[in-house]
Amino acid sequence: MIFDPWSIEDVEDYDRLIKVFGMERVTKEIVERLPQPNRYFRRGIVFGHRDLNRIIKAIENGETYAVMSGIKPSGEFHFGSKMTAEQIIYFQKISSKAIAFYAIADIEAWEDNGLPLEKTREIAVDNLADLLALGVDTKRLYVYRQSEELRVLAWGAFFARGLTRNLLEAIYGEKHLGMYISAIIQVADILLPQHSSFGGPKPTIVPVGADQDPHIRLTRDIARKYDSLYNFIPPSAVYHKLQKSLGGEGKMSKRDPMGYLTLNDSPELARRKILRAFTGGRESVELQRKLGGMPEICVVYQTWLYHVEDDDLVRRVFEECVMGKRICGECKLQLAEIIGKYLEEHQARKERFKDYARQLLEERLMLKTLRR
Amino acid sequence: MIFDPWSIEDVEDYDRLIKVFGMERVTKEIVERLPQPNRYFRRGIVFGHRDLNRIIKAIENGETYAVMSGIKPSGEFHFGSKMTAEQIIYFQKISSKAIAFYAIADIEAWEDNGLPLEKTREIAVDNLADLLALGVDTKRLYVYRQSEELRVLAWGAFFARGLTRNLLEAIYGEKHLGMYISAIIQVADILLPQHSSFGGPKPTIVPVGADQDPHIRLTRDIARKYDSLYNFIPPSAVYHKLQKSLGGEGKMSKRDPMGYLTLNDSPELARRKILRAFTGGRESVELQRKLGGMPEICVVYQTWLYHVEDDDLVRRVFEECVMGKRICGECKLQLAEIIGKYLEEHQARKERFKDYARQLLEERLMLKTLRR
Repeated sequence: MIFDPWSIEDVEDYDRLIKVFGMERVTKEIVERLPQPNRYFRRGIVFGHRDLNRIIKAIENGETYAVMSGIKPSGEFHFGSKMTAEQIIYFQKISSKAIAFYAIADIEAWEDNGLPLEKTREIAVDNLADLLALGVDTKRLYVYRQSEELRVLAWGAFFARGLTRNLLEAIYGEKHLGMYISAIIQVADILLPQHSSFGGPKPTIVPVGADQDPHIRLTRDIARKYDSLYNFIPPSAVYHKLQKSLGGEGKMSKRDPMGYLTLNDSPELARRKILRAFTGGRESVELQRKLGGMPEICVVYQTWLYHVEDDDLVRRVFEECVMGKRICGECKLQLAEIIGKYLEEHQARKERFKDYARQLLEERLMLKTLRR
Repeated sequence: MIFDPWSIEDVEDYDRLIKVFGMERVTKEIVERLPQPNRYFRRGIVFGHRDLNRIIKAIENGETYAVMSGIKPSGEFHFGSKMTAEQIIYFQKISSKAIAFYAIADIEAWEDNGLPLEKTREIAVDNLADLLALGVDTKRLYVYRQSEELRVLAWGAFFARGLTRNLLEAIYGEKHLGMYISAIIQVADILLPQHSSFGGPKPTIVPVGADQDPHIRLTRDIARKYDSLYNFIPPSAVYHKLQKSLGGEGKMSKRDPMGYLTLNDSPELARRKILRAFTGGRESVELQRKLGGMPEICVVYQTWLYHVEDDDLVRRVFEECVMGKRICGECKLQLAEIIGKYLEEHQARKERFKDYARQLLEERLMLKTLRR
């Protein structure tokens, strides 16, 4: 029987990233050096990193650093984007010298999903309102649409020099030109905090899902390639595990709207999604009472683990489950209630941030405070 | 013996463009409809076009149109760039409703020649001073560096969607990613005059060398592809013949600096280049007196034809040559004197335009008058 609620997930793929691609493991020692580690760190959901030590040193020495990530505005803010956003907010909050950058990847939404820039403009405002409601500090935030950020587009074109078909296909597979452009623009996004107009080279931490590592590797290669020109510091990264689809098959995908929760879901819709989710329950209540549930394969438990803040509560859920004291139906209802309440509060907060989100994007207010 | 000084050049390759790629021939009838046709039109140097009729109609009806081209700031302004520039100036001058656009292709200079943007900034100012000295009307001019023009970079990324490896390699051969980005940015350059911020769709004429037709074809395809979104009018084009290297082998190339004249050459340097140029002369003065020269293979005659304004004089040079009344040495000296005087006057004019060129590029003065 497993008695550790924080390290139950299948990590074979994650091990491969560590062994084959030289990602480093987030150890207990590293987590202990982080100020007030959030639940993603406490619970091993952030399992890998590159050069996180550089950021920890910057925090300890009170030096400026950037935290950079983004969102593809192809739909609502789902719980995977929420993980990235909460990581940004965490790294922004733990040091007064941290500056957050948030890219609205509207070029990617066009290249990958065929959503015209006109359509994604409004989605971007909505997404940003979510980020604000989650608690980002706008005094130390630079947010932008890729299609409106000259520095990113020009750097993207600049960095593209010499990238061969072989290299691109090895990383991304055979794609149309727009996908490769989108990839190189993302490299420019990640290096933007080091642009001279933002004060030049600085440590940068990029919190992303584990599947985004190819972008990080390419960016670090390019940072080294243009080191003599820009003195880039190769960006650091932390990688979190990916959420499974509520249906239990594969990773969450926008192609199956009932497979994931979003910050826009009504409490009732979230409840329905949770109630039909795949669990690690046994064939019968009797068997479950006898053998206990299987949280290691349960997406309901994964949702507890990733999204419910209270460590004691989540530990209790885990223990009751594996000891057969918790039946899936009641577990789902309890989770649905907690998530529903969270959504209600979040959406009320978000409502108050909508106008401000539009202002930030349309009037680019942040530029004045961040540009030197 | 050939007695037509205007149509002596080998046009096999040009015929191929017309037959295989659907370019149209510039006929006498078309030239007659153009107001005050310049020497390139009068002398058949502009041999092909696409949709030139649309521009002629705009001129006749007093409707707005754009003339668009550019320069790669990889060195000095050579006499090939001068041909394009003079075509821009011609199409700008013949109608008060014409607006000229001039792209400084610094992204292309980086992708193709590895010249960093920092290095090409000054070259761009110098190139623009040449354009101004050649006589462009700055009240109806928009000039920009690609790396600083958000609309072009964003449209480039936008238009890249769906362009497959097969298509790109068929047009441009197997190149690194940067070259393809440079190509799609050039498409955006050509469509920029039709951007809503410049008043939306309008006929556009693009004067280019015959070797640039692939860009024009791709641009016209993309204009049609996004017709429903932007109502693009497929750009028109006029194609001029390419100048041969002064050495007589192939087209002028920046790889052989003695092979071409530039607007920065001192009269003395231009003289030396002309004196060592390949001619259509015979083995001996006696033979030349007897058989006449061969202007059809002579780059010195080509320079008379392309760059000396006076029709009567050029006709006389041609006739004297084919009739054996003109010896290469004296012909070169006479040309060197005319070109030398031209360069002297041009360079004096240019000197007065340098500060203004810098202002135009750095302060983007034109935006105010051209944006609606």
